[in-house]
Amino acid sequence: MRIITIEREFGSGGRELGKRLADSLGIPCYDQELIDEVVKLHNLNPEYIEHISESDIRTVYPRTIGHRFSSMRAVANDSIKVAASQKKVIERLASQGDCVLVGRGADVILKDQKPFRIFVYADQVSKIDRCLTRSEKGENKNEILRQMKRIDKNREIYHELLSDTKWGGKENYHLCVNTSGQEIKSLVPALTSYIEQWFQNH
Amino acid sequence: MRIITIEREFGSGGRELGKRLADSLGIPCYDQELIDEVVKLHNLNPEYIEHISESDIRTVYPRTIGHRFSSMRAVANDSIKVAASQKKVIERLASQGDCVLVGRGADVILKDQKPFRIFVYADQVSKIDRCLTRSEKGENKNEILRQMKRIDKNREIYHELLSDTKWGGKENYHLCVNTSGQEIKSLVPALTSYIEQWFQNH
Repeated sequence: MRIITIEREFGSGGRELGKRLADSLGIPCYDQELIDEVVKLHNLNPEYIEHISESDIRTVYPRTIGHRFSSMRAVANDSIKVAASQKKVIERLASQGDCVLVGRGADVILKDQKPFRIFVYADQVSKIDRCLTRSEKGENKNEILRQMKRIDKNREIYHELLSDTKWGGKENYHLCVNTSGQEIKSLVPALTSYIEQWFQNH
Repeated sequence: MRIITIEREFGSGGRELGKRLADSLGIPCYDQELIDEVVKLHNLNPEYIEHISESDIRTVYPRTIGHRFSSMRAVANDSIKVAASQKKVIERLASQGDCVLVGRGADVILKDQKPFRIFVYADQVSKIDRCLTRSEKGENKNEILRQMKRIDKNREIYHELLSDTKWGGKENYHLCVNTSGQEIKSLVPALTSYIEQWFQNH
């Protein structure tokens, strides 16, 4: 079974890389689809789930245990419920066959299945450029910087919750790819060969 | 101009990868050759240079400035002289044309030439296995572990001396390659493609 997981810094193009690698390998890529799957399980509103996924888990859990506002406790419980569902969904998707999974801690959730683990990163200038180019809401540079910091921090915290290894620590990945100044598309053929060879060796 | 620099953890197979990549790209690889070049410049004994290169630079410099044993001061001066000569040699070699340079801080020494920078690493089990296999002196596991720790520490210190960036910090490399359980040879075709594509983009 070939499972490829991609963790990525916000704006580094990891999601695009995941989709393109999956296409190149002829296997599915799961990312937004995971959320949709969770939505089906929970019958929640997609925007709500999106919000929960990107909210700072640490601010609502576990510090809110015993919090005087019951609404905060509800949000905390929902965050954990969503994360637990995402985990189950990731396990279920990976059990169905070869795939690329982007984010959501799939690398640590699926560690027993020995996925090929990629970390995608870039320098700040490149990440901001990429975000400005793809932005639909027309955020400015400062808004993107704040968003970047918040989302990456949340990814790190989410990883901390699932594992005792460090998010982005190169020792936890098979390959760390710096996309600074790179067109994602151009990286795909060589990375596809690298992954195919890796699975032949394992 | 295509300059590829390889920094590597001791036992990760970085040197073999450098030589194989250079062969695959049809360009020279400089490693031990650098020392030989320095030897010519200094008319020193090769074993002596090898010893200096791997000795802990920090223990002899700059703490030995003003040291009461003049012999220690001489060693310190020689370490610095050797390092300064290596730097000049690296600059000269890189100015001659496309090449792969393994170690010796070539990545930071040549930063203005914009080399493609690779960091090669592996888990400890793989590194020890690789060392045991290639060992000519028949060291045991503990001896290799001590050697590994000492040499990697020296590489880190040497890097510190030349640059304010962190040795092995993924942000300082274009690609970080984990060779755990991998045959180096098998990684070469895909990495060659990756590097060729990278230079086309730059």
